[in-house]
Amino acid sequence: MSHVSFLSDFGLTDEFVGVVHGVIAKLAPETKVIDITHGIRRGDVRSGALALTRSIQYLPDGVILAVVDPGVGTARRAIAAETEGGMRFVGPDNGLLGPAVATMGGATKIVELTNPEAQIPSAGATFAGRDIFGPAAALLSSGEAQLDDLGDEVAPDSVTPLLIPLPEIEPARVVGEAWWVDGFGNVQSNVGPEDLAVAGISSEVTVTVRIGASEYEVPWVDTYGQVGEGEPLLHIDSSGLMALAVRGGSATEYFNLATGTALTLAG
Amino acid sequence: MSHVSFLSDFGLTDEFVGVVHGVIAKLAPETKVIDITHGIRRGDVRSGALALTRSIQYLPDGVILAVVDPGVGTARRAIAAETEGGMRFVGPDNGLLGPAVATMGGATKIVELTNPEAQIPSAGATFAGRDIFGPAAALLSSGEAQLDDLGDEVAPDSVTPLLIPLPEIEPARVVGEAWWVDGFGNVQSNVGPEDLAVAGISSEVTVTVRIGASEYEVPWVDTYGQVGEGEPLLHIDSSGLMALAVRGGSATEYFNLATGTALTLAG
Amino acid sequence: MSHVSFLSDFGLTDEFVGVVHGVIAKLAPETKVIDITHGIRRGDVRSGALALTRSIQYLPDGVILAVVDPGVGTARRAIAAETEGGMRFVGPDNGLLGPAVATMGGATKIVELTNPEAQIPSAGATFAGRDIFGPAAALLSSGEAQLDDLGDEVAPDSVTPLLIPLPEIEPARVVGEAWWVDGFGNVQSNVGPEDLAVAGISSEVTVTVRIGASEYEVPWVDTYGQVGEGEPLLHIDSSGLMALAVRGGSATEYFNLATGTALTLAG
Repeated sequence: MSHVSFLSDFGLTDEFVGVVHGVIAKLAPETKVIDITHGIRRGDVRSGALALTRSIQYLPDGVILAVVDPGVGTARRAIAAETEGGMRFVGPDNGLLGPAVATMGGATKIVELTNPEAQIPSAGATFAGRDIFGPAAALLSSGEAQLDDLGDEVAPDSVTPLLIPLPEIEPARVVGEAWWVDGFGNVQSNVGPEDLAVAGISSEVTVTVRIGASEYEVPWVDTYGQVGEGEPLLHIDSSGLMALAVRGGSATEYFNLATGTALTLAG
Repeated sequence: MSHVSFLSDFGLTDEFVGVVHGVIAKLAPETKVIDITHGIRRGDVRSGALALTRSIQYLPDGVILAVVDPGVGTARRAIAAETEGGMRFVGPDNGLLGPAVATMGGATKIVELTNPEAQIPSAGATFAGRDIFGPAAALLSSGEAQLDDLGDEVAPDSVTPLLIPLPEIEPARVVGEAWWVDGFGNVQSNVGPEDLAVAGISSEVTVTVRIGASEYEVPWVDTYGQVGEGEPLLHIDSSGLMALAVRGGSATEYFNLATGTALTLAG
Repeated sequence: MSHVSFLSDFGLTDEFVGVVHGVIAKLAPETKVIDITHGIRRGDVRSGALALTRSIQYLPDGVILAVVDPGVGTARRAIAAETEGGMRFVGPDNGLLGPAVATMGGATKIVELTNPEAQIPSAGATFAGRDIFGPAAALLSSGEAQLDDLGDEVAPDSVTPLLIPLPEIEPARVVGEAWWVDGFGNVQSNVGPEDLAVAGISSEVTVTVRIGASEYEVPWVDTYGQVGEGEPLLHIDSSGLMALAVRGGSATEYFNLATGTALTLAG
């Protein structure tokens, strides 16, 4: 059983995702496609990279196909990468794949998808998911192609990195930002519990959360059940990062926070 | 061929559904996952239970995985149930599974998902779909686990029931409510044709529909084609319940009705 | 490996799509279902037909199941068609299937889905996707039924055609319309590059785009990279049709265009 796990910003309103599934089904009929999500905000490479990174350890061996590609139709390269464990990644060279590849141990080889025989010709503009990325993922998944069959090797240090803001650790406080608001209104920060430990803030205390001019005293707990209905909490979320939540409510509303909002956690 | 049919309120914007698919693919590579819907309103256990009940007879034998879980992180239990016919259900103990289990003949055994070896450890908070429910569904589906391997048996009468409002049948009228508005604007009530029969209201007549202070005369017909374009109708819908619809239009707009709105059908 | 490719206007909020998947899984367990899209605007037959036509050449051999069916519950027929190449199409007789069937070479046989033994009885109104179309697609896919087993043959010229507006070609200009706005804001017209050639407008020039009282000078280019960030372009899109786009932006906003808006391209 061979798997392609597929993430994009295509949305589900148009037929884009279905067409890529069709291309894969034609080229690799035995492959099973898992849709990680196609709801990444259009062109938001960082959100796509973060979602892929949160998912990667839970996805089956095989091929990861990721397309969030605001530079389509420009000089940005299309690439495929391979890791020591044999996972293959296909997507644009814009930083989207980097963090997930790193999570899987880093790339042992990266190629640019330049071989036209591994692509589908288009009647007009290239729909890269359909014509380049999808076919590459399918051929890798079916075993009909190896990385070298898809194009020429590129130097790892020529690949576009993703710039991810790191939290600033100061005495008794950590300055970070909100980098994911999920559909339940939970707000994941870029701060890890180890960052708070370095700053001297320990768990099971009340943490001061500063957002703009507002300040909130929020208990750092293990589970929602430790606070009352409608009350806020800080916890280590299921990705292992510090997150704000509201039991039976929405932290994005409670704290008036969106992706990218700066926040300070102080002891 | 083994199936897991999966319903949740996760939405499709985040990677939650994809990650659960990934977990199942890793643990049960031969299993096919059917997405019933992930569009249940966040935390709306009753709507999830009703959607599952409407679907259940059309789903293949195997495992039903349902996660609408506003009590995640509290003391609510995670359970799995088995019916006489061999269908297995996995989800939170909050009433979500009850009506569908009952439709399939009732549970012959219910266990609490307490065995940590049948779960995935988390770096932080538990993402129950990924760490507990998904693995349980996968292990049941692959045959690697039976109910007893997942945890200890619990008494059926200790399981949380779902409180579903029943219509009140009076002479020549039935007082019920709207309990599902679908995306086409059709409004399913909790009133069955047998309830109207008991009240002495027969089909192929005009029924008086009272909603708040408004009153509508609506023909009870078999098909949309029996009324004109844009006109309202009452019919037995494809789930066997009395529903309001508008040919080529939206009953939720026409009648200004939402899920939970009270309505009276009078002869 | 047998495939059903499935397009509808059911949306993903309700369980409609999941139930049809369930029906297919029960009747044809070995069949793989590809969701083309379920985001067609409710009842918009033409948009459904166009999406299907854009997709068809990328879908695997097998059965196409398409349901955009504003006439459900009226006298409109349910049909199945077969093409020379062996592709089978199932859907309502309202023009939805026509263009895609034509793209595949035209129908060699069309039947009306009248055989009750190939359908699922309903407790109330027919949910045609679940009770008629889905079962037909599944039985064709599994090989358990041929077209003739589903109902009586109908005359090809009795089938409802889809009325698609053709562009008007005049000297030095083509009058067409926007017929698809995708989720990225790209606007596909019904004008092909060959129409512009007949009008004497050649590529790699600046084209005058008239929309209502507004006029825009837009460069006809091959790729987004040929214009600056935020600038408009006209190009042959990945379906082979003239389309308006904005690099890093939305043509639907830039040009204030929606599906159906008339537009003139002049040399």
